[in-house]
Amino acid sequence: MAASEKEIAAHRGAEWRINLPDGSSEIFTPEKGLVRRVVFGIKCLVFGLVWKILNFLKKAWDLAIDDPKKVIHCLKVGMALTVVSLFYYMRPLYEGVGRNAMWAVMTVVVVFESTVGAMIYKSLNRVTGTFLAGALALGIHWIASQAGEKFEPIIMGASILLLASATTFSRFIPSVKARFDYGALIFILTFSLVSVSGYRVEKLLPMAYHRLLTIIIGTSCCMLISMVVCPVWAGEKLNLLTAQNLGRLANSLQACVALYFDDDNDNVAIDIKDLQDYKSVLNSKATEDSMANFARWEPAHGRFNFQHPWRQYHKIGASIRHCACCIEALNTCISSENQAPEVLRKQLSNICFRVSSSCSSVTKELVMSLMTMKKSTKMDFSIEELRSSVKDLQKELKSLPQSLVSQPDTSKVQQSAENEKKQRISTARTVVSLVEIIPLASFASLLIEVSVRIEGIVHAVDELAKLADFKPAENEMIRQIQPTQK
Amino acid sequence: MAASEKEIAAHRGAEWRINLPDGSSEIFTPEKGLVRRVVFGIKCLVFGLVWKILNFLKKAWDLAIDDPKKVIHCLKVGMALTVVSLFYYMRPLYEGVGRNAMWAVMTVVVVFESTVGAMIYKSLNRVTGTFLAGALALGIHWIASQAGEKFEPIIMGASILLLASATTFSRFIPSVKARFDYGALIFILTFSLVSVSGYRVEKLLPMAYHRLLTIIIGTSCCMLISMVVCPVWAGEKLNLLTAQNLGRLANSLQACVALYFDDDNDNVAIDIKDLQDYKSVLNSKATEDSMANFARWEPAHGRFNFQHPWRQYHKIGASIRHCACCIEALNTCISSENQAPEVLRKQLSNICFRVSSSCSSVTKELVMSLMTMKKSTKMDFSIEELRSSVKDLQKELKSLPQSLVSQPDTSKVQQSAENEKKQRISTARTVVSLVEIIPLASFASLLIEVSVRIEGIVHAVDELAKLADFKPAENEMIRQIQPTQK
Repeated sequence: MAASEKEIAAHRGAEWRINLPDGSSEIFTPEKGLVRRVVFGIKCLVFGLVWKILNFLKKAWDLAIDDPKKVIHCLKVGMALTVVSLFYYMRPLYEGVGRNAMWAVMTVVVVFESTVGAMIYKSLNRVTGTFLAGALALGIHWIASQAGEKFEPIIMGASILLLASATTFSRFIPSVKARFDYGALIFILTFSLVSVSGYRVEKLLPMAYHRLLTIIIGTSCCMLISMVVCPVWAGEKLNLLTAQNLGRLANSLQACVALYFDDDNDNVAIDIKDLQDYKSVLNSKATEDSMANFARWEPAHGRFNFQHPWRQYHKIGASIRHCACCIEALNTCISSENQAPEVLRKQLSNICFRVSSSCSSVTKELVMSLMTMKKSTKMDFSIEELRSSVKDLQKELKSLPQSLVSQPDTSKVQQSAENEKKQRISTARTVVSLVEIIPLASFASLLIEVSVRIEGIVHAVDELAKLADFKPAENEMIRQIQPTQK
Repeated sequence: MAASEKEIAAHRGAEWRINLPDGSSEIFTPEKGLVRRVVFGIKCLVFGLVWKILNFLKKAWDLAIDDPKKVIHCLKVGMALTVVSLFYYMRPLYEGVGRNAMWAVMTVVVVFESTVGAMIYKSLNRVTGTFLAGALALGIHWIASQAGEKFEPIIMGASILLLASATTFSRFIPSVKARFDYGALIFILTFSLVSVSGYRVEKLLPMAYHRLLTIIIGTSCCMLISMVVCPVWAGEKLNLLTAQNLGRLANSLQACVALYFDDDNDNVAIDIKDLQDYKSVLNSKATEDSMANFARWEPAHGRFNFQHPWRQYHKIGASIRHCACCIEALNTCISSENQAPEVLRKQLSNICFRVSSSCSSVTKELVMSLMTMKKSTKMDFSIEELRSSVKDLQKELKSLPQSLVSQPDTSKVQQSAENEKKQRISTARTVVSLVEIIPLASFASLLIEVSVRIEGIVHAVDELAKLADFKPAENEMIRQIQPTQK
């Protein structure tokens, strides 16, 4: 690909000066080189196009490999459309509903979304919006027809202006936008179409009936295919996303602590990608909101009931992002110019590692609790462990200045039996200024804050467990299901 | 409203036991009270409905008062629909395009978005998608008709399955999703409709021509109304949102620093709402992304050229959120259990206030630069001021432990001339433990980090200034335009 880019660049450069075979070069006047330039231009265009298309196909292929569910969704859309179109080719059905059969096709195209919840939301909104608007438009049409031919267009025009404006405005109200945005759009659409076509077409009632019927046919076809063939549930996706975000949080935290205390850069196991995991957590709000909106429309599936408390996932998500924000601040400690000296960091490294690993064991329990929809039996233990490690870190932090003052003597005693490197460290200890503690102290305070926020997540998940009535897990089972965290 | 709720509750409680006028009470059996219960039920329903409707209307009214532009948008939609419908009532035009005129109405309903950019995006996508799909469908239809009546449905079905699947998949590719999502949907829709109806309707070409014509009529009508009547530009909105977010950042920072050093809670001027301003900054990514997407489609307007570097706003937005994250961490220092003693905080309060006010004067310059699209002449000065204040804070932080050790003597000298309160403070100074510095040191480190991140924002805005070729501002002018920050 890169080669073809160079080629294009070379062609562009050659437009104005051409080296002839005898070694001389010639500068073209626009008229002289016009044909060649057109040829070059076309070549460039073709090369560029081919390159772009290949690049696009590569991207598409990567996407398909990365998430085969998307490919399945596409095939499902194709299938639904083909089924509805074939309906159309069958003469008996076609004779029944006439030209309105195209509404079934239209419904399938517009309504078929990637999750079941989004599809049910759109389907119900479409059917209800069409029905309400159709009924209202017929009513107003009847009133207008009573008013005489002169007033009819005025009444119809005024009603369209009024209703379209009011309905458009209702779409700005958050509660309407979340649940009935599409329905409002369809309401305006149907109302306008019926009131406009009503002026011309005599048989309005059968037309309205056929339109509603075809929309219901299209909707049912979509629902059937979407729920039967590899269904993708918004609720399940939301639950998984929440669990994944928790996993990412733990990964980021562990990588961050490991990198902070890794002075020799010898720890090749630290994955820089893990370190940046919190970023996608911070940007997950929009996806989470839409998933939670759609999940409300879904029937009971898998481990989720119809009235599963999806709103609580907003709270869990918010507390996860709250924690990710703190990890973000922790992350900048790594790249900060002012760093505490190695000797100080060595002293806190063990306890910091303990805090980070107890944080991650708490999040592991949370992930498991979410994935199995059971109360974790080990959670209390993990939290106690986290709290005690945080207390120890606080103690260690408090004793840091004292230990620095008192240590020179003890280290001198140790010197005799120890090697040169350690000697250097103990010498360094005596010269550590108290100010140098500050970067390390900030890091430790942020780490403590992270642990506090993780307890906030625990609290939010506990509330979910209460609302959704999680059963206590049996220990045996938990060990078997051990989900992967990423 | 609350009263009617109570009434409902009272009604519900009364369903099972009724106090008779003579003082006795009677327990109803279901059969006996059935009529009354139905009446009560209906009453409850009516009260509930009325209450809900009133509540809804109040919300809508508040929204309209809060943002009159939304009301104007709604009236514009109504206007566009009425204009298109009136077209329909004119016999000459109706005779020309026949029943296809309904596509003009449909186009207006679906395409009319609140910003000009979104509307141009949808309009161009709709026209292009319809044209491409129509041409392709006609071609395939011709091929199929050559293959004989038996193979025709098979070829048509297969082409729908293939093209619908492929186009649906392309909508998952981020670059396509950002620019051509709606066009892809319309492509599938038109292709399916033409290939299905083509099997029945003989005169395909004039129909296709009429459909395209009506869509263009609808689109032009939308564009005209949207751009002439109080236009709302996505680009302008994005620019304003970015400036507002900067203002919110400065508000939050100032409120946070003020609250941290406000021990006596006497500073009534601190607005708790200001303190929480950073939260809406953190959640603004989705709005920003869609605005930047739509702004690309807009023609030159106001101070923005056609090729204005809208992508750079992503970077500015990201750096603003990066800073907001740090302010979030700073905010938790206020509510933390461990607080540095007053005497310590007093020592740093002045310099911290200086840092926060220089941060906010830098953001003020940035806001002005964004709003006027000119390079600020005072920016270099403001940044120098910020840097020097940060250096002073670092110095003060370093001297903190020493000053605590050395101060008891000097404070004793001062005692003689000072009042009792100060005496207490100076006594306290001698007993301050070094560990107690840590919360304050963390706060100061975070404040320094905030200033570093604000420099990051300055860098991003500078890049924008280079890309969009901002002219240097004249000092006189800047003073006149002074925008409000909120």
